[in-house]
This record gives sequence, structure tokens and C-alpha cells, in this order.
Amino acid sequence: MYKTDVVIIGAGPVGLFAVFQAGMLKMKCHVIDALEFVGGQCSALYPEKPIYDIPAYPTIMAEELITKLKEQAAPFAPTYHLNQQVIGFRKQENGTFDVVTSKDIIINTKAIIIAAGCGSFGPNRPPLDNIRAYEGTSVFYSVRNKIAFADKSIVIAGGGDSAIDWAIELSAIARSITVVHRRNKFRCAPESTSKMEQLVALGKIHIAAPYQLHQLHGENGNLESVDLIDFESSLKNIKCDILLPFFGLSMDLGPILEWNLHMEKKYLSVQSDSMQTSIPGVYAIGDIINYPGKLKLILTGFAEAAIAAHSIYNLVYPDQPLHFEYSTTKGVKTDEKV
Amino acid sequence: MYKTDVVIIGAGPVGLFAVFQAGMLKMKCHVIDALEFVGGQCSALYPEKPIYDIPAYPTIMAEELITKLKEQAAPFAPTYHLNQQVIGFRKQENGTFDVVTSKDIIINTKAIIIAAGCGSFGPNRPPLDNIRAYEGTSVFYSVRNKIAFADKSIVIAGGGDSAIDWAIELSAIARSITVVHRRNKFRCAPESTSKMEQLVALGKIHIAAPYQLHQLHGENGNLESVDLIDFESSLKNIKCDILLPFFGLSMDLGPILEWNLHMEKKYLSVQSDSMQTSIPGVYAIGDIINYPGKLKLILTGFAEAAIAAHSIYNLVYPDQPLHFEYSTTKGVKTDEKV
Repeated sequence: MYKTDVVIIGAGPVGLFAVFQAGMLKMKCHVIDALEFVGGQCSALYPEKPIYDIPAYPTIMAEELITKLKEQAAPFAPTYHLNQQVIGFRKQENGTFDVVTSKDIIINTKAIIIAAGCGSFGPNRPPLDNIRAYEGTSVFYSVRNKIAFADKSIVIAGGGDSAIDWAIELSAIARSITVVHRRNKFRCAPESTSKMEQLVALGKIHIAAPYQLHQLHGENGNLESVDLIDFESSLKNIKCDILLPFFGLSMDLGPILEWNLHMEKKYLSVQSDSMQTSIPGVYAIGDIINYPGKLKLILTGFAEAAIAAHSIYNLVYPDQPLHFEYSTTKGVKTDEKV
Repeated sequence: MYKTDVVIIGAGPVGLFAVFQAGMLKMKCHVIDALEFVGGQCSALYPEKPIYDIPAYPTIMAEELITKLKEQAAPFAPTYHLNQQVIGFRKQENGTFDVVTSKDIIINTKAIIIAAGCGSFGPNRPPLDNIRAYEGTSVFYSVRNKIAFADKSIVIAGGGDSAIDWAIELSAIARSITVVHRRNKFRCAPESTSKMEQLVALGKIHIAAPYQLHQLHGENGNLESVDLIDFESSLKNIKCDILLPFFGLSMDLGPILEWNLHMEKKYLSVQSDSMQTSIPGVYAIGDIINYPGKLKLILTGFAEAAIAAHSIYNLVYPDQPLHFEYSTTKGVKTDEKV
């Protein structure tokens, strides 16, 4: 069980800058993110895309932006809890919150900042009964360690670049590869299509199209076969050890939707002068919120992080009025507390 | 007479970023500043001070911040009108404004953004009758061209670093130097004090203290002598060609105060969702404004610049709804218009 001043949900650019802003006001932070790394969308979706509207950066790569923000937060020694979601929080009698994550970590905190953007990323799951029972043993949504698939019978589902690229790549080491796609046409680079066609001709890749995944068979998380179904509802069974569904990523607000925070459309409502949500002590910033005049820009989220930090200061240090000081005057001071 | 979409008053960091934000929305800008260079306080007061709270810059020198912001604005080719103040603006029948500067430049514009910070900088003038009549010929508040003071009889007023440093520096070329200070003690580096004392002992510098400036004598802008007065009201006349008052800089909102914009205390009131002042078409951003939750941070001004630009877009392009696009998608596009 940890104890801190502020729990920040979301380690994207805005969450990272909130660490810095809180730190400048002598508040320490724990940061939780569903991804295995910090940076949110910037790192996960477009690390090598240039961004043009970060003030004083005529251009900056998304990954470089994250590196700089992490460096700026570092003097305040935030604790990162990655690869886990916040399940919920419980308000304590003394006004603090216990925040609980999917890894059963509990953090007691004086305030919460939700900087969750469009929500946590997750794979688009095919709608199959019991698929979760196979995840991590026979079903994978990404390939982290190719060698684990050597000599396996693999079904790859999907018709985009990921599906085809991995079919080509893994055909060199797998026992068999079957690509299942609901259409006959694939949405991938022409070069990949012709490479795949060569491997099909050589018997290294089998195509099952137009087919969709229908049912999984197996025991104790170990897949034995997959039923496919076509538009005329006729079934086809494919023996396999591994299923790799590549249907892209989705973003999902997940448990946040169940916290009884006031929302309008898909956005959390906040008071624009404090960034406080409908629950006192719980703040929200960045793309997850809306208020009159809100712009969905990273730089707007930065300014919101500053507002939230200043509001929270009064919660954390109720007896010490904040004397506004410019960073040029005070620099970045850390003390034994942070 | 110029014609543009947006006139920005103030070329500090927030004004410069407003050029970029307006440019991203296809609006061209003219920027007016009282200083001879862009950058506002950053360039004038603390160019070599590090700033720590610009997002994604763990530290950046104020002057470097300005260089980057100017570079970011450059693709949109703003027109800078420096070394002049905005005197006022006249609303035209077609809803546009004619903005008039102290150099008699007139710019017709669809919107105005006031990003004037704490106002324009000016020297603190000693309260002497007719001092303006001598300015530029015999009275100077800064030394731009040392050689112009060779062989002159100079009175330097003030007790700080500027006064003493220039007394020491100019004593090498002036015919005489008299330093007038209302106290016997000087507020300057100890090193400078001892250097000055050596020059006093050599007869190169005369000290008149405790004395204050009382009256100027001369004709046609040419100073002949200065009357000094002490606490017992006894006068002392000093013959001189040049008076250099060094009483620091003041910031002054100047003509802006007379534009009938709604203010509260010393700040312009704006609607926080649009940055519009009490006059439709006139917007304000940065340190000159106040609204609930306002923080006086440069990064807050950046976010306000984005809000103002988005609001003004609807004025400039009333028939073209704004389709929000990320800078990562559209990049920085300029066309023949800007």
C-alpha cells in the first residue's frame, strides 16, 4: 500500500506534465497507465509522427516530446505503475482516496487527476465465447517474442497490414499458417499481397476467406482448434495451437465510466477554473474532458494540468496559501519529500 | 494602409504563439510592439534567465524560447511593426477595425488580439517640468552609442548598477561626470563601489549626494544646467550638456486604458471560452487578462492564444465551419495568402 499526494491516471503527455506541475508545488505523484510504457497515444500510435503545434517546437516527433516531458518530470521522482488499469477508488473517512489497480496495488492519495485521454488502449477482441480464457497462453493480440511461435500451428485473423506482415514473417518458423479474413480482398501494401501470394503458392500460408472466426475449442487455456463460418453458415474446423487476432486497437474508458462522475456525451464535465469533476478531490484534464471553449490540443491539456495542480495545492496544503512564484525565480526545487 | 485578418498587440511569447495559431487556421497577422525587438519581457528583462515551466523544455533560456517561437510563426509570414505603440482603433461600418500606431501606420483588420502583458516598457521619468523637450537631444534613458557622449559634461541620476556602471564607463571619455543620488549609499555591486571611489579620488567622477534632480535649464532641447535640491531645500546648480536618469523601467498599459474595455482591477475581463473582451472582435490573452482560474504562466497564455484563434476563425471565415484537424495530420500549410 502506497501513500501519495496525487494519483494521476494516464501517462500520456498531459499526465506527465501534471507530474511536473504538481512537483513545482511540492506535491508528489503516482502515475498509472494501462500501457507498458509512458507516453500514451504519442508513444503507442505515432511515435515517429512530427507534431507542429507544441509551443516553441516548430516541429517535434511524438516520441521526442514524451522523452522531454519525462525528463522534465524526473526531478520530482514520480512512481509509475504501468501495464495496469485503475479499477476504482474508495473515498476514506479522512477525505483521502484509496485507488485500486488491476494488479491489486492500492494507493492512498489526497487527490486524483484523470488524464486518461480517449481511455486505455486495448485490442479489438473478436466476439468469441471464452476468448479471455485463452489469452496469454494461446491467444495473442501482438507478437512480442517471435520464437515462442516456432513450430506452431497458427491461425491469424484479419485482413490488414498487421495480419499479412505477421503471416509472412512467421511462415518462416511456424509449422503452419492459416489467414482467416471475412473478405477475399486484403487491405495491405501491394508488395505484401504479392509476397503472400508467393508463400500461398509454396504452401507456406493457407488462406481461409471469406470466413470469420466462430468458436474456439481447447482446454485449460490451450487451444486445439478453431471453427470458422462463412456467409452461408457452413463451418470449417482448423486445428491450431495459436490464434493471433489482428483487428486493430480500440480505446476504451473502461472502469472510469462506472465511477459516477458526471459526463456529457463521452466527456467528463469539469469546472474550467479548477478542473474538478463532479466528485470533490477528483480532477480531470486533457482529451477526456469538456467545458465551454475546450480545444482538444496537447497544449491545452498542459494548461489544464497547471490549473489542476494549483487547485489541488489547496487540498494538500490547506494551511499554506500559495504564493505565486515564477519558475525563473525559484527554479526546480525538490526536497526530501518528493 | 495595411489590411490583414488579425492585429496582435504585443510581440511577447504569447503574441508570437498567437501568430502561429492564427496561421494554422489560415489567418494572417500584423504584430505591433513598443520595443525595438520581439520577445517582450523575455528579451528585454531576462534573456539569459532559464525558464523551467515551458512544457517539454526541462529548461530553456528566455531568449531561446523567443527564437523558437519566432521560428514557429515564420512560415505564416507575419508583418512586425516594432518600436511603436498602438494609439487606438476605430470600428468601421463593415465591422472591421482601423488600428493606428504611434508611427501613424494604419492597419485595417477583422480582429484584434491584445497580448500586451503588463504593458509597454518605458523608463521611469523623473518628475521634472519639460523633461520630454530634452529627450533624445540632451536627456537619455539608455546609452546606445557611447561615442556621442565623448567630451560632454554629464549628470547621471540614480544609485543603482546602471547609474554607477555608466558613470565608471563614461568617465574615460566624458569631460566631467556628476552622479546625483538621493542617498549617500549606492545599491550596486561592491566591486563597482570601490572602482567608483577610486575614480572619485582621481577627480574623474563627482558625487552629489544626498541630492535630487529639481529643475532643468536650457533652450531648444539643449540642456545647459541642472538644479539639484537636498533635504533642507537648498539648491545646487550643475552645468551640463547631458542628463542620464537611470531610475529603472516601468510597465505601462498606456493607451489601452482609454479604449473603454471592461477591466477589473488592472486586468482586462474576457470570456474564458473565447478570450473576447467586452468589445466584440477585440480579444485579449496572456498576463493582461483575468478570468476565474486564470494562472499567470506563459503556457497558460499559449493555450489562450489557441482559444482566441479558434474564436476569431468564425469571424474571418463566417461561412466555413472549422473542421478540427490535428497538426500531425495536416502539418504546417501556408499558401499564397499568408
